[in-house]
Amino acid sequence: GWGRFGILYNEANVGNETNITSRFRLQIDATAESDGGVTFGARVRMQQNNTDDNRQPAVAGSNSPAGTGFNGARFFARSGGLEVGVGNIYGAIEFMPGMYPIDLGLTGLGYEYTAYQFRADAYSSGGNGSAGSNGVEVLYSMGDLSFHVSASDTNDRIAAHVAYSWNGWTFALGAQDSNNAADTELAASVGGSFGPVDVTLAYADNGTAGDHITLAGRFDVGAATNVEVYVADADNFANASYGVDFNHDLGGGTSLRGGIASLSNDTVRADLGVRFNF
Amino acid sequence: GWGRFGILYNEANVGNETNITSRFRLQIDATAESDGGVTFGARVRMQQNNTDDNRQPAVAGSNSPAGTGFNGARFFARSGGLEVGVGNIYGAIEFMPGMYPIDLGLTGLGYEYTAYQFRADAYSSGGNGSAGSNGVEVLYSMGDLSFHVSASDTNDRIAAHVAYSWNGWTFALGAQDSNNAADTELAASVGGSFGPVDVTLAYADNGTAGDHITLAGRFDVGAATNVEVYVADADNFANASYGVDFNHDLGGGTSLRGGIASLSNDTVRADLGVRFNF
Amino acid sequence: GWGRFGILYNEANVGNETNITSRFRLQIDATAESDGGVTFGARVRMQQNNTDDNRQPAVAGSNSPAGTGFNGARFFARSGGLEVGVGNIYGAIEFMPGMYPIDLGLTGLGYEYTAYQFRADAYSSGGNGSAGSNGVEVLYSMGDLSFHVSASDTNDRIAAHVAYSWNGWTFALGAQDSNNAADTELAASVGGSFGPVDVTLAYADNGTAGDHITLAGRFDVGAATNVEVYVADADNFANASYGVDFNHDLGGGTSLRGGIASLSNDTVRADLGVRFNF
Repeated sequence: GWGRFGILYNEANVGNETNITSRFRLQIDATAESDGGVTFGARVRMQQNNTDDNRQPAVAGSNSPAGTGFNGARFFARSGGLEVGVGNIYGAIEFMPGMYPIDLGLTGLGYEYTAYQFRADAYSSGGNGSAGSNGVEVLYSMGDLSFHVSASDTNDRIAAHVAYSWNGWTFALGAQDSNNAADTELAASVGGSFGPVDVTLAYADNGTAGDHITLAGRFDVGAATNVEVYVADADNFANASYGVDFNHDLGGGTSLRGGIASLSNDTVRADLGVRFNF
Repeated sequence: GWGRFGILYNEANVGNETNITSRFRLQIDATAESDGGVTFGARVRMQQNNTDDNRQPAVAGSNSPAGTGFNGARFFARSGGLEVGVGNIYGAIEFMPGMYPIDLGLTGLGYEYTAYQFRADAYSSGGNGSAGSNGVEVLYSMGDLSFHVSASDTNDRIAAHVAYSWNGWTFALGAQDSNNAADTELAASVGGSFGPVDVTLAYADNGTAGDHITLAGRFDVGAATNVEVYVADADNFANASYGVDFNHDLGGGTSLRGGIASLSNDTVRADLGVRFNF
Repeated sequence: GWGRFGILYNEANVGNETNITSRFRLQIDATAESDGGVTFGARVRMQQNNTDDNRQPAVAGSNSPAGTGFNGARFFARSGGLEVGVGNIYGAIEFMPGMYPIDLGLTGLGYEYTAYQFRADAYSSGGNGSAGSNGVEVLYSMGDLSFHVSASDTNDRIAAHVAYSWNGWTFALGAQDSNNAADTELAASVGGSFGPVDVTLAYADNGTAGDHITLAGRFDVGAATNVEVYVADADNFANASYGVDFNHDLGGGTSLRGGIASLSNDTVRADLGVRFNF
């Protein structure tokens, strides 16, 4: 698992803009392998987010980090390039290449660079995800080509993506059908390197929320530091969204991270802190 | 611990008969041994059941697997054949030989073959059990003879069983006193082998719920597969209950399991899936 | 972690004085060290207390041990004698020498010997503490001298203590400012040894709750047994509070413990049981 902590500034929290932010994630991957070479397993996480942003007069029940338990479990059976998962599934749209082209700052700073905007099934680190609602998915990879199909009872979603790698570039195309008009319908991405710069272009047709497009890049500045940038626009954004961050490796699985973003509602969010793997 | 996942068909869930079923159990047994040879310890479980059977329109608060925490802890002190337990105790009636003569299918399929029908103190994998209500028990074994006495504040229960093994057969007799007329009053069982077949006959006088009798058997079919069957009848069953399953060992602590049962309310329940130990 | 279980007698629980008591604590300290020698980490606990004192007719929701999850996490960065902590912080008043001069009996028996009486930020083993309310603290030690400053959004507290060790004696002085008149304002303690007896004198000015003063001692009786005693008085105590206990080491991280105290409300509390480390 890993932990992170630092400072988060959020211009939208008027009168209480600056707070401590932290996350603790303990991940348990439990597996067993049959004599026939099939791996069966489950993944659970215990994740606590302390947002520290509105508890000054101790609001009962709200924003209470203590009592953190497991999230919904994801179970799987895997053999060669084929994997079947049930429960808190990854989801074919969330899991397609290009949806998380960068990991901005310490906390993600709003994740407005994720094109599908969480309008599809996704693994939930602290909640149910599709556990409890018949989440099921199949992943298959064969050389440079990979497929992913997922479905759940949430909005009767069924989704799929196909991805192909060619000469260092990855192309992905996804589609989803559901009974919710605000769910993502189509997604596409392409990512690769122009010399020292990794770039990703991602697009999603988010149904009634309209189109969303993101351009993101990452490049090294020095031996232990990289910088990430993005710009995103969408039909339901009042303003274009953009941001920049840095990640500085401190060694031993620790890093210093920080970033700043101007979000679509024209407020600024910024963070700075450390992350450590254990 | 272990995990299991698969498909569960339940005829009684009209309109939503077939669903994914899964369970994840993480067990922690923490012990220390004194210089005098007494072992002190505690057992806790984190168990999540995903029944996936009625969340289509996202029912708030109900059937929500995420947030799984510890169950009530069971503490014990053990020395030689003597063990004292407090908290989430096993319970003398639940723990007597013959109460779980088989483990039907992937999920137990209703457990109508358990003669006492949970009308006594029992270890709870996801809840309190007798933790928080003064659960206490003493277990003692001496060669082929064993005793178990338990008590809790739940219905002011006090229960005991004695078991004796002779020539490969086990005889057990249990009794319970409580202030709830629907609690089990008496239980008896005998189990052993007729050649290749393990059989158990179990009986319980479940107070106002009347008598309950179960006959169950298990036999090997091939090197890695066994089959289990049962038939049970009870005064408060509208119909006799019966079922059959198979368990096929896949090696490495993994197995394929499935079964089908006709329950006392005349509905069919069936399951199929895998179980893995980790 | 550790566990403990035993019997607790509480004269104030009229009609239900004697009950089983237990605690299970699983502690996770997760750390990583940067190349520069800074240790980053987090501490979380899963702690379950079973008080078993009022569930005879199964009170819904109250006193329910099952479902135990993580407490609020404490994060830290440490280098040499300097440590910065955020989240569920220790707190400068709770953490100052002399606040827990003894650990009475199996359960603490009311902790009336803790001079500040929990009127300041403190690490919570089962709750949030200052996690979620911007808890932050700095600890610094330099030879015999140590400093500790802490702050949180709870009552807008800011607190500090300084401690100094000299010839086997430890002197500590603490102060706190907050917007709650019932919070501790000042605390002082001195502790050391008179021959075979460890003694601590602690004082706190608890704001509107008035002054609190505690004298406590510990001495060995035999190779594996010690005895602890205390007497405490406070402006808001109807009676002086006093108690005595014993701790007998059983080896292998296990011990037998028991004590008796006469509390400020003139009721008696007593316990007896075992504790084991794992």
